[in-house]
This record gives sequence, C-alpha cells and structure tokens, in this order.
Amino acid sequence: MSAKTDVAILGASGYTGAELVRMLLGHPNVRIAALTADRKAGTTMADAFPQFYGVDLPRLVTIAEVDWSGIDAVFCALPHATTQAVLKGLPERIKIVDLSADFRLSDPAAYEYWYGAPHQAVELQKEAVYGITEFARDRVAKARLVANPGCYTTCSQLPVIPLLEAKAVDPDEIVVDAKSGVTGAGRSLKESNLFTEVSEGFHAYGVGHHRHMAELEEGFSRAAGRPVIPSFTPHLVPMNRGMLATVYLKPVGDHTPQSLHEILATRFAGEPFVHVLPFGTVPQTRHVRGTNRAHISVFADRRPGRAIVMCVIDNLVKGASGQAIQNLNVMMGWPETTALEAVGFFP
Amino acid sequence: MSAKTDVAILGASGYTGAELVRMLLGHPNVRIAALTADRKAGTTMADAFPQFYGVDLPRLVTIAEVDWSGIDAVFCALPHATTQAVLKGLPERIKIVDLSADFRLSDPAAYEYWYGAPHQAVELQKEAVYGITEFARDRVAKARLVANPGCYTTCSQLPVIPLLEAKAVDPDEIVVDAKSGVTGAGRSLKESNLFTEVSEGFHAYGVGHHRHMAELEEGFSRAAGRPVIPSFTPHLVPMNRGMLATVYLKPVGDHTPQSLHEILATRFAGEPFVHVLPFGTVPQTRHVRGTNRAHISVFADRRPGRAIVMCVIDNLVKGASGQAIQNLNVMMGWPETTALEAVGFFP
Amino acid sequence: MSAKTDVAILGASGYTGAELVRMLLGHPNVRIAALTADRKAGTTMADAFPQFYGVDLPRLVTIAEVDWSGIDAVFCALPHATTQAVLKGLPERIKIVDLSADFRLSDPAAYEYWYGAPHQAVELQKEAVYGITEFARDRVAKARLVANPGCYTTCSQLPVIPLLEAKAVDPDEIVVDAKSGVTGAGRSLKESNLFTEVSEGFHAYGVGHHRHMAELEEGFSRAAGRPVIPSFTPHLVPMNRGMLATVYLKPVGDHTPQSLHEILATRFAGEPFVHVLPFGTVPQTRHVRGTNRAHISVFADRRPGRAIVMCVIDNLVKGASGQAIQNLNVMMGWPETTALEAVGFFP
Amino acid sequence: MSAKTDVAILGASGYTGAELVRMLLGHPNVRIAALTADRKAGTTMADAFPQFYGVDLPRLVTIAEVDWSGIDAVFCALPHATTQAVLKGLPERIKIVDLSADFRLSDPAAYEYWYGAPHQAVELQKEAVYGITEFARDRVAKARLVANPGCYTTCSQLPVIPLLEAKAVDPDEIVVDAKSGVTGAGRSLKESNLFTEVSEGFHAYGVGHHRHMAELEEGFSRAAGRPVIPSFTPHLVPMNRGMLATVYLKPVGDHTPQSLHEILATRFAGEPFVHVLPFGTVPQTRHVRGTNRAHISVFADRRPGRAIVMCVIDNLVKGASGQAIQNLNVMMGWPETTALEAVGFFP
Repeated sequence: MSAKTDVAILGASGYTGAELVRMLLGHPNVRIAALTADRKAGTTMADAFPQFYGVDLPRLVTIAEVDWSGIDAVFCALPHATTQAVLKGLPERIKIVDLSADFRLSDPAAYEYWYGAPHQAVELQKEAVYGITEFARDRVAKARLVANPGCYTTCSQLPVIPLLEAKAVDPDEIVVDAKSGVTGAGRSLKESNLFTEVSEGFHAYGVGHHRHMAELEEGFSRAAGRPVIPSFTPHLVPMNRGMLATVYLKPVGDHTPQSLHEILATRFAGEPFVHVLPFGTVPQTRHVRGTNRAHISVFADRRPGRAIVMCVIDNLVKGASGQAIQNLNVMMGWPETTALEAVGFFP
Repeated sequence: MSAKTDVAILGASGYTGAELVRMLLGHPNVRIAALTADRKAGTTMADAFPQFYGVDLPRLVTIAEVDWSGIDAVFCALPHATTQAVLKGLPERIKIVDLSADFRLSDPAAYEYWYGAPHQAVELQKEAVYGITEFARDRVAKARLVANPGCYTTCSQLPVIPLLEAKAVDPDEIVVDAKSGVTGAGRSLKESNLFTEVSEGFHAYGVGHHRHMAELEEGFSRAAGRPVIPSFTPHLVPMNRGMLATVYLKPVGDHTPQSLHEILATRFAGEPFVHVLPFGTVPQTRHVRGTNRAHISVFADRRPGRAIVMCVIDNLVKGASGQAIQNLNVMMGWPETTALEAVGFFP
Repeated sequence: MSAKTDVAILGASGYTGAELVRMLLGHPNVRIAALTADRKAGTTMADAFPQFYGVDLPRLVTIAEVDWSGIDAVFCALPHATTQAVLKGLPERIKIVDLSADFRLSDPAAYEYWYGAPHQAVELQKEAVYGITEFARDRVAKARLVANPGCYTTCSQLPVIPLLEAKAVDPDEIVVDAKSGVTGAGRSLKESNLFTEVSEGFHAYGVGHHRHMAELEEGFSRAAGRPVIPSFTPHLVPMNRGMLATVYLKPVGDHTPQSLHEILATRFAGEPFVHVLPFGTVPQTRHVRGTNRAHISVFADRRPGRAIVMCVIDNLVKGASGQAIQNLNVMMGWPETTALEAVGFFP
Repeated sequence: MSAKTDVAILGASGYTGAELVRMLLGHPNVRIAALTADRKAGTTMADAFPQFYGVDLPRLVTIAEVDWSGIDAVFCALPHATTQAVLKGLPERIKIVDLSADFRLSDPAAYEYWYGAPHQAVELQKEAVYGITEFARDRVAKARLVANPGCYTTCSQLPVIPLLEAKAVDPDEIVVDAKSGVTGAGRSLKESNLFTEVSEGFHAYGVGHHRHMAELEEGFSRAAGRPVIPSFTPHLVPMNRGMLATVYLKPVGDHTPQSLHEILATRFAGEPFVHVLPFGTVPQTRHVRGTNRAHISVFADRRPGRAIVMCVIDNLVKGASGQAIQNLNVMMGWPETTALEAVGFFP
C-alpha cells in the first residue's frame, strides 16, 4: 500500500514517455506503478533510455498486462488514433491525461475530416477537457479526461488567445510561422528524421494542411467567438528540443504593439510558467529547454499598424509531458508546480 | 603576362572571401592576382583557411600593398561602411563587384538613416547597379560597379518581385519570415556567435529594425511602382549555411496560388540557377548548399485567399560570393554560369 | 537571518557559474547570497542567462563589493591564474570549492612549469585537497579548500585509478583518447569557438602538451606509487556538453578485461553517481547530460592482451559544477547527493 | 554514339551513389548512362536527391533493367553481401569499381569469418585489386575489378602503412582511435541514426569487433610483412561528413616523431590528394569536406618514446566515392585528378 498516487504511463518508450518518467521521479505525490511499451515489453526502461540506468522503475509491459486495480491515474502517450480504444476500456475512477491528438477536437466531424476515420469514443470525446492549463484551469480541475494540447497549439495559442479574447487583434489577419526541434517527430523510423537528412539544413513541412491546424483553429475560433483560420506553417529546426512561434498580428481599434504587450503581461502576471519578457526582448528556445516554461514577447513591426508576437517553449515539456503533469497536478488538487520547478540548463 | 583576367579579392580572410577563392579557382578566365586581409597580412590563405593547403595562391597583403596596375577586376568583401573610401580610390578601368551593403541603397538619405552616417562616395553610389542578376542582367552587363545584393534580399526578392511586377499580389500584405544559417554573421567574434550560444536553440534577431529591410523595401517598391513595407523577421538557424524565406502573400484579382506559381515558373524558365519546383513541393536549404542555385515553390494556404511562397538559397553563394561571380561573368561578357556549374553535395 | 548556509559564487556569468546556480536553486540547505561577475557587475543573472528570468537571485556584483561577513561558503569559478590572489584574501572560516586549476597541483614546481609563473598562494596550495569525491571523500570532509578537478581528469581518472591501485594494469601502457563538448572551452571569445568553426567538423587540440596532463599525471602517479606518463589527446566534439574518455590499457599478471570490469564494479558499487555498465555496453555522453553521473564500461580489445575502458560524464556537471556541489555536501556533512539527484534528459 | 565512356552506377539512391553522380557530372570523359536503385526504380535521381533538380540524368531503374551492351564501366555502391552475385554476372569487358566490402579481403576464409557466409564469387575475389590508390596505383591501372577501400581503412592506412613499410614503428604497438561522421552509416532506417539519437552526444560503437578490422589488419600485415593486430575503436561524431584517425605509435630504432613525419612527407610528396601538414599542425575534418583530400600530421607525444599520427578525410569522398573515381581514372589511363580537383568549402 502506498500513500502516493499510483500512476501508469502508456507508451513509455517514446520521448514524451521518457520525459514523464524523468519529471515524475521528482514528484513527491506520485509512484510510477506501471510502464507500457508494447513492442519493448519485457525489457527495462534503462534499455530504452540508458539515462535511467540504476533507477528503480517497473519493467516495461504490454497494455494488456497492466493490473488496473491499483492505478489511480494514467498518462497516455500512445500514437495518434490508437488511443481511443484503449482509453474507452479503462475503469471510470481512473483520471487520464492523454497526450495524443485523439481527444483534442471537440467536434467529431472535424476529427473525421482531419484524421480520415470516425472517432471511436465519441462519449469520451465530449467529456474531454482541452487543457492548456493557463486557459482551462477550472475545467481541468474537475475533469476525468484531459486532452493534453499539442506543442504547436500550446506555443501558438498562449500568446494569441488573450489578444483574441480582448478583441485587440484582427482574427482574419493572423500569420503563425512556427519552428520546431526534431523530437516533435517522435522516435519513429522515417528517412526524413535521420541525422543526415536533418542536420545542416532547414525546411517547412505540412504546408497548408498540417493536422495541428484543426486544434489551432478551434482554439482561436473559441477565443474570437467566431470562425478563425490563420496562416500556419511549421518548420523543422536541426535541434532536438524547442519551439518558436513567430506570430504576425494586426492590432485593431486603439491597440498598439505596446498595448498588446500589456494585455499579455497582465494576463500572465503570477503565472508560474508563462513569462512575458520586456517589450522587444527576443525569446530563445534554448532558455526554456527542459522546463515547463513559456517565454513570450511582443515587438513593433516596421510594417505600419502591425505587431509581432513570439512564444518559445520546450516542445516535449510545456508542449507535451510537462503540461501533462501540470494538468494532473490541477486535477488532483496538488500545487500546480509540483515536479516542474527546475530551471533549465543552457548551454 | 596572362591571357586571363587578373582579379583582386579585398577581404579574403572572411567567409565570403574564402568562397570567392574556392569558386574562382575553377574559373578558366580568371587569375587570382591579389588577396587582401589587413589584419592577417603576411600570412597565407591556407593559414586562414586550411582547405587551401597546397593550393597556389598569392599571400595575403594589406590593401595598401596591392599593385593595382595589373588588376582588371575587384571583388570587395570588406565590412560594411569601410568600403566606400577604398572603392573611391580605385582606377576607373577596374570593374568592381562590391559584396558589402555600402552601395546597395540608391537613396543617400536612406543610407544615412539606416547606417547612421552620410555616404562617403555619393557619385559612385549613383553609378552602382544593384545586381540580383536575374533582374538586372542588362544593366549589370554595362556596369562598372555592381552592388551585390544581401542574402536576405536575394532570397526574399527572387520569388516576390515577379509577382509584384505582375500586380498579382497585394503589396500591403507581405510577410517575409526568413531563416538563416550562422555564416551570415561572418567570422567576427561575438558571444552570440559562439557554438555554445547557437547550437541546440533557435531565435529571431533584429526584429522590426534589421538593416536588410532598407534593401528589401527599395526592391519591392521599385517592382510595385509605389512604396512597399513588408513585415520582415530574420531568424538564426543552428546550421552553417542556408537560407529560407517563407513569404505569406495575398493574391489579388483573379490570381490564385496556382497562377502565382505559373508566373514564377514562366519568369524563371531557362534561368540556369533559379528553379521553380512543382506546385506544393517543399524546398530545403540543404539541397542548394554550396551552389548558386535558388529553389522556389508556391503553396496554397489554408487561410482563404492567401498563398505561401518559399525560396531557399545558400547565403554564402547565391546570397553572396556566387552571385558576385555571376555578376562578374555578365560584366565581362563570359558565359553566366562559368565556375558556378557544380551541383551541391548533400548530406 | 537564515537557517541556510549562505553561499557566494565568484564568476557567476560563465557556464560553470550558471550550472552552480541552476543546481543550488534546488538545494534545501543553501541560500545563494552573492553572485560576482566583474565585467557584468550591476546587471542580473537573467541578463547573462535568460533561463533564470523571473527567478529571485542577487544582482551580479564585483568581487570587491561582496560583503563577506555573512558568507559561509564560496564556489570560485574564476579563470585560471586569477584565483590565487582572491582566495588568499578570504576569511579563514569560509569553506571554499575552487573550480579553477589554481590549486589542483600539489607541487609548486609543477604549477610553475605548466602555468609559466610562480604560484601566488603556496600555503593555501599545500592545504588544498584535490577532490574527485569518490577517491577523496574523507579528506574532502575535513578540508577548508577543495581543488575541484578538471573535467578531463575526472573522466580519465575515475575508470583508471582503481585499476592502477589494484596493480591490474601496466602504468607505462596507458593511452587516453578523450573527446569533449564545446562548453569545456567556456564562454570566452575565440575564433575557434565560433559555431561556424566548430560545427560539422572534428579535430584534436593541445596535442602532446595540454595543461590537464599535469593533473592527470599526478593522479595516475599517486595511484601507481611511481611516476606515470600516459598518452593523452583531447578532441573537440561539435556538441555542447559531454565527455568521453576511451582508454587503452594492458592488463598485467592474471588480469583480463573481465577482471578489470570486476574491479571497477566492486570499487564503485553503492556509489550514487558512478555506474559501471555491464561488460561490453557502450556508454554514451547523451545519457548523463545535465547530471552528476559517470557511466563506465570495459571491453575486450581484439588486440591480444589489451583492454579498453570508457567513461562518460557531463563536463559541466561531474566535470565541474556538480562535483563542486558534491564536494560542498561532503564538506558540510550533508547527504552527498543533495541537489544532484535529478535524472538527465535525453534527447 | 558517345566518345565518352558510358558508366553505370548501381545503388545510386544511397549517399555514396549521390556523391558519384555529383562528381561524375564534372567529369569530361564520362557519361552517366544508367542509374539503378531497386526500391526507387521508376523515379528520378532528383526525387531521391533534390540537389539534382533540373539536371539531365537517366531515370532510376532496377539492376535487371540495365542494358549492359553500351556500358563500359560500373561503380557498384550496393550494400555489403549483395554485390557478389551481381558482379559475377557482368560482361567481362566492363571495368568495375566496387564500393562494398565484398571484395576487399583477399582471404576467402577471412571473409567467411567476418561476414558469416562463404564468398559467392571466389574467382572474382582473387582477381580484385584492393585500391588505396596511392599504394596500389600500378595494380589498379591493370585491374578489371577494384575493391574500393572502406573509409576507416583508408583513413587509418594512409598514415601508417608507409611507417610499417619503413620498419619505423613497432607493429605490436598500434592504437587507432577513429571518429566518423554519420553518413558512414548510410541512409538506412535505424533508430540509432535518427537525428534525436545522434545529435548532442558522442559514443563508440562496434568496440573490439568492427568489420573494418579485417581490412585494417590485412593492410597492416602486408605492410609489416607479418601479422599485425592493432587496437581499433570507431566512434560516431554528431556531424554529417568527416573522419579522423588518431593513431598512437611507438617509433623503433633511431626513429623519432620527426623522422616519422619525414617518412610520410617524402612518401606523399607530389601526391595530388594526400597532404602532410607541417609537424605538429592539427588536421581538421572540416577542411577536407567534400574533397578527395587527406590531411596528415605527426606529433610528439608527451609519453616518452611515442608518436601520434593523425589523418583526416571526407568519409564519402576519399573514403568512398572520390577514391572510386580516382581508381577509375587510373584504370582508364586518364589524369588521376579528373573530376576531383575542386577545393572543399568551409564552413
């Protein structure tokens, strides 16, 4: 028997799984009770990730092998589309943070459009709370299932949603030019993820039809109170971690770049993880690496009547596993920063 | 006596200098007659760049030591603002390609605004031809002094100027989000250029006030026939070479992303260095590395009524030394591709 | 008044300084009371290292400005040769961990030979304890001044010293081929540390005359009970952090690669930071990044009668700031792993 | 009809295949007549390698589809072990340079030991000439089939074989610590070759049992006139191209590091691709990138009576495709440097 909350991590042999393990090892209220990795079942976490050599952790098992009777909470880091069937089958008392895209879209039709198949767990989808924690804290606190947002959406929505809600920018004039490190593509074997194909080069991908757009548009539309479709282009940076969204905006009414900065600074004042830098200060991905932080800044554009907003996060932490733990902390009523306080290292 | 054209390279110990030497060594009409590097005078090119070990090249000398009597043409790769005095003093018969920014702005007032000091060679500035070769071939052919364009400007103007000239896009709705490798910063000692400060991270710089904007605006304005100010943000990619401009545009009238693609494909058909990829094909910087090529592509944006245009170049070649040689080839009446034919290597 | 120990960090604006701050922020017994950085005095730690944005830390001051009255312990991360005068002047009650090379050599003549000037604080030098913690725990516990070992020495001595002490390998047949990330060179402005000069390439440096050799030879000689001079070559890896020592050894007597593995496994059993991997398992620097860990392994060499031993560390942590904190923990009688427990992240 | 030699490249969609195409495009005597890539048959070289966009090249076909009637020479860049059957079936008049390991070992028993299966083309194996061009020029000139050496062997044997032949070093005291860029692993899909698994880290592989050892030992033994087994450890550097061999040697008799340098300088004087740098000058992989060059240097070791020799090459050029073209040039009686003259670029 444990006074701690027993947690299972499904899909522990991927990068987000490893990040969950790393951070939960420092969580005073959590015991890692089960780790699954269907293809690597039978081996250890240290086999998959030697940074855990010598650390006491349960062996990797298949999902079918998990004894759910003692599990209180689940982090689900399975591939997109494989998650619905698994989560549908879990006992109702278990709290879930799902890191896949499966429950992020509230509209089943939108899910089917973007993912090419009907949703397999429509009831659960209705119940799921989309959890950029800073925007959904109250609903996350009461949720059984939190759909943990994607990295691109987190990075793009954090600096823009408060401005849309304040009706400070024109919803039809949003350009999000986003750049991500390679861990965003996960650990899967694709020629395009080889070192030799990524290093010493730069390119965009998914131009005009990236799946993250659905999430992005839902959030922007909800904030604006009407349909919003931004320009959105993801790019691949030859680095492991980090994400930058450069957002071009058109302030409306009396708004100026400076007033946008004020809105964001006020909105995020007191937030432990979201820091609005002084006006015109360039945020860098390297300074939030390994942490749950977001650094946001606002700039005057030389193009008259325009503003530029930037946000950086670590795509694996605030963009995935860190925000997942932040959400669990809120769901469980624990201090929100538990296990997430560490400052990152640079270089 | 040499049947070849004797060429001097001023500022040979920087990266653009080394690139000029590398490519000119394969130029059948050129003899490298003088190499200057004021601080490294007395040493050899192989001391500064060991890739030239064993190659027969003149020693590095100061500019003052150059015997101009036999020199027919000069590549000037000196730092910005140091160039005007040097070029003013050269014999009139010498053809010049200047890689600095000193002669790129046709308006002396604009120069003074952006560079903080009056221009020192206003007469030369009037005479200088701004040389994106594909757009200025005829004037380059007759020029004595060509102002070789900056890398950001080349990369941004190549895909946009034909569209502005065709009045196919709204000049007030241009966003250029540009990304550059680190060689763009040259070989100078700045903390921000250290490996440890650049690697494993990504950030913007010069947001809202980068000097390349002046060049960019002049070119766009000339093409549009009226003042144009785009949004322009440069970013630093942790790689040595390569540049990508992601340009967000608003087609006007009946124009569509497809018709923009057609305009560009037609405009650059037959160009040896500028290749318009099939509609929707992502260009990658790594595929033009080490070459004078530009790869351009056009995409439909999911945002209604918008298009995305991308261009990749090697910032040191088409963005600097390669275009400089291309310009000299045109000035001398040589085949334009001489010494620039090599296909790049990847990885 | 604070129940915590007040600590000053001298030289906080370098990489080892930043690492000290990062880890000490998680130390329950320590309060960071003073941070010095002579050239950046007056600015904040977040100015020098934006990862600390929003973290409550004292401003950067000059060493002269420090009020020593409340300081209990000092980490000195000043450049080599500048440290002696500073430390000589400190009140006797202050415990010191010095990360420079100034007190690492016990022989003043050796210091003068390698550093080209007589030692300025010979009395302190005599008193200093050379602190690879695992080998000097008892003496560190009683020390006032610990000379924190260099990264190359830590990485090379950890796997070799137990073998020399056991007389299991021939002291005249040691080849240490070492590879380091670029942070080992610090944050100083040298052309050879530019991104463009380091990335996409590999080379050795200081071949045959690197200053770390003095430290290395002292430690090996002490362990062997007679003078030992190994072959030692450092190389620069295009990465930020990490160090690998590949050591070629000749087992003597009945010793075999397997028995060397056994000696090391036994010697380090129970050590919290030094892990001996199973025989023949390749250690990787990335798996100890950001941590105070060392991973060691032993291999049979195809060359008859030889063995290969490898050790990886993070040069900034076990090779510098982490070991410094480990040493302070021992000096203060605190649990040795305090503030050093976190598992590293990969990728 | 073509006055040029018609060449086929088997396995054109790998990295060595792409390098062959790149360099042969500049070869005045060669026409690329056929390109095979079994899995990508039907597509174009530009599909596999967009750097060739717009270049006139034959489509990729299967080996079975090649019309051999017009083919004069073949570069075979197929995976190890798949090559024997293919080459056995070629018309006798066709000259072959094989870049696989299949014909590198003269001893069929050694082949079977290292590759786990009997050789399928023993007659051809006997006929094959192992072609480090500088050591085998005369035999290459008369060969029908040249076994193009591996990158590790080329890099290690170039600086050591002349010393063994001169009996200047002890054959029993050779340590080769080698480091390679990631292209050495080819374009195949392995988790260990992902960007995320390679970047920001360093490690050895194949310790004590790498297949290149067979080749290495054969060459060293032939040069020494008796069996030689060196220590040999390959390491993976987070960069695309480049290889460094750091070799620890014991001069014998009156030999000194300086006399070893003299032997090498004399041996390679006049060689177009192998450059012996001044004594004690550190060679860097980046300075030979993209070229067929080797830079060699010699150092005094602080360990008494020892020397350190280093050699750098580009593993894909002098270590593979460049040397293959050099060998074809010799086989055909063309100037040996044809198509290989270009200086590399750095950065």
